[in-house]
Amino acid sequence: MSQYVFGVDVGGTTVKLGFFDVEGNLLDKWEIPTRTEEEGSHILPDVAESIQKKMEEKKLSPDQVVGVGVGAPGPIDGEGVVHRAVNLGWGTFSIKGTLENILHMPVMAGNDANVAALGEMWKGGGQGSTDLIMVTLGTGVGGGIIIDGKVLTGFRGAGGEIGHIHVQDEETESCGCGNKGCLEQYASATGIARMAFKKLAETNRESILRQGKISAKTVFDAVKQKDSLAMEVAEEFGKYLGDGLSVIAGVVNPETIVIGGGVSKAGEILMDYIRPYYEKNVFHANRNVKFALATLGNDAGIYGAAKLILDMR
Amino acid sequence: MSQYVFGVDVGGTTVKLGFFDVEGNLLDKWEIPTRTEEEGSHILPDVAESIQKKMEEKKLSPDQVVGVGVGAPGPIDGEGVVHRAVNLGWGTFSIKGTLENILHMPVMAGNDANVAALGEMWKGGGQGSTDLIMVTLGTGVGGGIIIDGKVLTGFRGAGGEIGHIHVQDEETESCGCGNKGCLEQYASATGIARMAFKKLAETNRESILRQGKISAKTVFDAVKQKDSLAMEVAEEFGKYLGDGLSVIAGVVNPETIVIGGGVSKAGEILMDYIRPYYEKNVFHANRNVKFALATLGNDAGIYGAAKLILDMR
Repeated sequence: MSQYVFGVDVGGTTVKLGFFDVEGNLLDKWEIPTRTEEEGSHILPDVAESIQKKMEEKKLSPDQVVGVGVGAPGPIDGEGVVHRAVNLGWGTFSIKGTLENILHMPVMAGNDANVAALGEMWKGGGQGSTDLIMVTLGTGVGGGIIIDGKVLTGFRGAGGEIGHIHVQDEETESCGCGNKGCLEQYASATGIARMAFKKLAETNRESILRQGKISAKTVFDAVKQKDSLAMEVAEEFGKYLGDGLSVIAGVVNPETIVIGGGVSKAGEILMDYIRPYYEKNVFHANRNVKFALATLGNDAGIYGAAKLILDMR
Repeated sequence: MSQYVFGVDVGGTTVKLGFFDVEGNLLDKWEIPTRTEEEGSHILPDVAESIQKKMEEKKLSPDQVVGVGVGAPGPIDGEGVVHRAVNLGWGTFSIKGTLENILHMPVMAGNDANVAALGEMWKGGGQGSTDLIMVTLGTGVGGGIIIDGKVLTGFRGAGGEIGHIHVQDEETESCGCGNKGCLEQYASATGIARMAFKKLAETNRESILRQGKISAKTVFDAVKQKDSLAMEVAEEFGKYLGDGLSVIAGVVNPETIVIGGGVSKAGEILMDYIRPYYEKNVFHANRNVKFALATLGNDAGIYGAAKLILDMR
């Protein structure tokens, strides 16, 4: 009987790999570099080789392994086909088919943010809920929606791309996606630092933030010291994210909203800024949603990838 | 073998019933009054009696019928339990359980707007798509989200309640739900008339709309005659609905967006006002979504209810 499963999280610089039992205990994890040259054509063969080596090392036969789940940054549809992943140099092809051809084991693939949401549902901050929204506040804003225990993949794998919902008509700067006024421009680590810079430039008011490097971390550190300018930045952040989440909740009616990514390291104080705006305008049925912090950190992707293939059984 | 199915659409004043074959051909339809007195306790027994009478009339035995699907106005979860339906006088109880106890046939229930979306996917404007958003522009704004052919029900049956997503911070009037600035206040028939009244009161400009009754219908009739004031109202309608749909699409990545309800009778001209705003800010992956008008009219609910129970097989 198959007792084990591999979870793979393909990032722009490294690929994280995890070896789990079917209960979701992480037995081993390691990393390999992501070789994006030659249109990323080495990435999946490298992943396969690394898994085969690990199986030899552990003296595992293929029938002891349920399969391999893969998360990667890009739209990946319900058939495991990626539709362009610029960071990896990938065009459109079947991740599932490519890896299955090498490994001769079942493979499934999904968007990295969606897969991370699945991981947090399974073993992280969203445990116990099968309807949840996860928002990942990092360099950008990623999102994953879980409905009835399953990833909302969408028609072309772009479900849960909540970093690019439009939240501000007056924005003059462009988002990485080309639009103006995306949630990501206010709720990502980059966006928080950008708002702080702007506010510092607009006034001469004193602020701890004038003394050193400005980042989402230093902004929330300053908030904890009651720095009024930093608190105004946090308020703006809370308004855009709280309002945005209230709209997303209106669409999906979640039980839990999980906040992850680097910004979430600021901790519970985030909720003090997000929650009031969320509550203000949300449809009454979504008022007592649970807010939780992500707990798996950078491992959410490998956990979710493992769960993805387990759910295919 | 079971060859037939019943679809039931419970409204505030009448219950619509449909008798279908399993391919979805509507063989018979009729209505009974909705008796909301005594906390709506007669409604489901009336439905059961009407179905039993129809079965006698057609000389059908229970094993020829797959079951009964029911749509009703209120949040109904994935177990067929309604969580308060104010229009019907209903509290919280299992629609599925109640009807099964009387009919001894499989029953499933869902929110009426969600079920109508399923109907439009199956036999209406959304045919061929399994990932779609349906928005019903009537007295209010209802919504239904279909993911991979299934209704997005949500944690407590409030999935797809897109009429109450927050789209305007400056609104001073309250929506029926108690909040201010809900999509429904601008995109419903009532909302369109409200915006027209406001605009007429603010200026002395000439407009066809000064001559008679003001309704969503007369506003769009005036738009077709190039009445500039009516066109401004349509522009506002288009902005709120187009922007709102772009956000909802960002969450679910649909293949098709179906526009239904009384307002949709204005026809293709609606798209001229919605689509530019939709395209302006939507995430690129959602740019070539199909827009379609609903085609089933008031029958969408019975079609969708029939499909709901067919999918339980």
